[in-house]
Amino acid sequence: MTIKLWHCHNTRSLRVLWALEEMQLPYELHCLPFPPRVLAKEYLALNPLGTVPLLIDDNTNLTESSAMLLYLVEHYNQGHFGVENSNKNYGDYLNWLFQSDATLTFPQTLLLRYSQFEPKNRQNSQIVQDYKIWFLSRLKMVNQRLIEQEYLVNNRFTIADIAVGYALYLGELLGLASNYQPQTLTYLQRLKSRSAFQRCVKLGADIANYSITPLEK
Amino acid sequence: MTIKLWHCHNTRSLRVLWALEEMQLPYELHCLPFPPRVLAKEYLALNPLGTVPLLIDDNTNLTESSAMLLYLVEHYNQGHFGVENSNKNYGDYLNWLFQSDATLTFPQTLLLRYSQFEPKNRQNSQIVQDYKIWFLSRLKMVNQRLIEQEYLVNNRFTIADIAVGYALYLGELLGLASNYQPQTLTYLQRLKSRSAFQRCVKLGADIANYSITPLEK
Repeated sequence: MTIKLWHCHNTRSLRVLWALEEMQLPYELHCLPFPPRVLAKEYLALNPLGTVPLLIDDNTNLTESSAMLLYLVEHYNQGHFGVENSNKNYGDYLNWLFQSDATLTFPQTLLLRYSQFEPKNRQNSQIVQDYKIWFLSRLKMVNQRLIEQEYLVNNRFTIADIAVGYALYLGELLGLASNYQPQTLTYLQRLKSRSAFQRCVKLGADIANYSITPLEK
Repeated sequence: MTIKLWHCHNTRSLRVLWALEEMQLPYELHCLPFPPRVLAKEYLALNPLGTVPLLIDDNTNLTESSAMLLYLVEHYNQGHFGVENSNKNYGDYLNWLFQSDATLTFPQTLLLRYSQFEPKNRQNSQIVQDYKIWFLSRLKMVNQRLIEQEYLVNNRFTIADIAVGYALYLGELLGLASNYQPQTLTYLQRLKSRSAFQRCVKLGADIANYSITPLEK
């Protein structure tokens, strides 16, 4: 059985696509317009939530992008992209994986929703401003770690960098990178220059029916 | 070294407190008023984000509640509360852990913030309504699984039930349980009747300077 991934250009599914490219695992890619629950209703039969990503691997179905990264490391013996549970930094590694989505990406979805995805009369500058502040203030631990190290855990590239790196990349698309600290900007450039990232970052762009507009200052 | 946990009554740190009680691990509890970044500024020296929970275990610091659950299972050999990576439901287990916070709890923080924690002039009924709908619609996978099984994974109690169960419990405090499906309500009652939950659910209430008010219908 081949891993199947459903993806929308520049959304969280990019994390998983990037990881599959890094790990050189074979996969079957299905690109969708956004939001699929409106524009590709047949997708709801596969994922009743209508969200991306969706990963199906034999009888395993996952809908959470950062969970998929950990699944790929553990299920496909990709330990060199992960951290062993006996390692002294294992807890730290888990914390980055969970923080990447629950703490860093969710506030960004509010920026997108209330600055550009909702119709004009439902857009909301207060919420956009509140969660712009939230997102940037939640980068404190990232900023601190990157003063000390080139990568987040054990000073080598792991899925924690993919998970958090995607949030930084989405922030850049939203026009927030001018607020990043220098070491964090350098880190983002380091991640974006990886060939695996470059091989997949444009996948799905041809059928994307939207683009992400940077926020006004 | 003893595990140290910083907790605010009824916040996400309840997940970790509940897990520690289930696992019968020794811990040192520090209860805080909310939000600690305003009311307990000395806490910022320990956790620069100012968020709860914080778990310190020797040289490991964690700030993400669902990451802490997985850390406790793996680091303290509590496999009977977890799922092995060789198990056919391992991916599903990870998906619940990540979904519990990124997909289910974050929308609830918006309900709390914009219905009661912000001053009146910054409260926002549109956002409260948008994320009430979001939260309830994201329970589809929980509802479906609980038709088939009494617990989320492998039909036995695991940390996935603690992680998702907390989101359901917070929803109940917010007055949303009348929208739950019958099997989901029964499941929440089953979880709340556990002695470990009952032993810890009131901890920190004496110094809590707030209570969660159910939303108006």
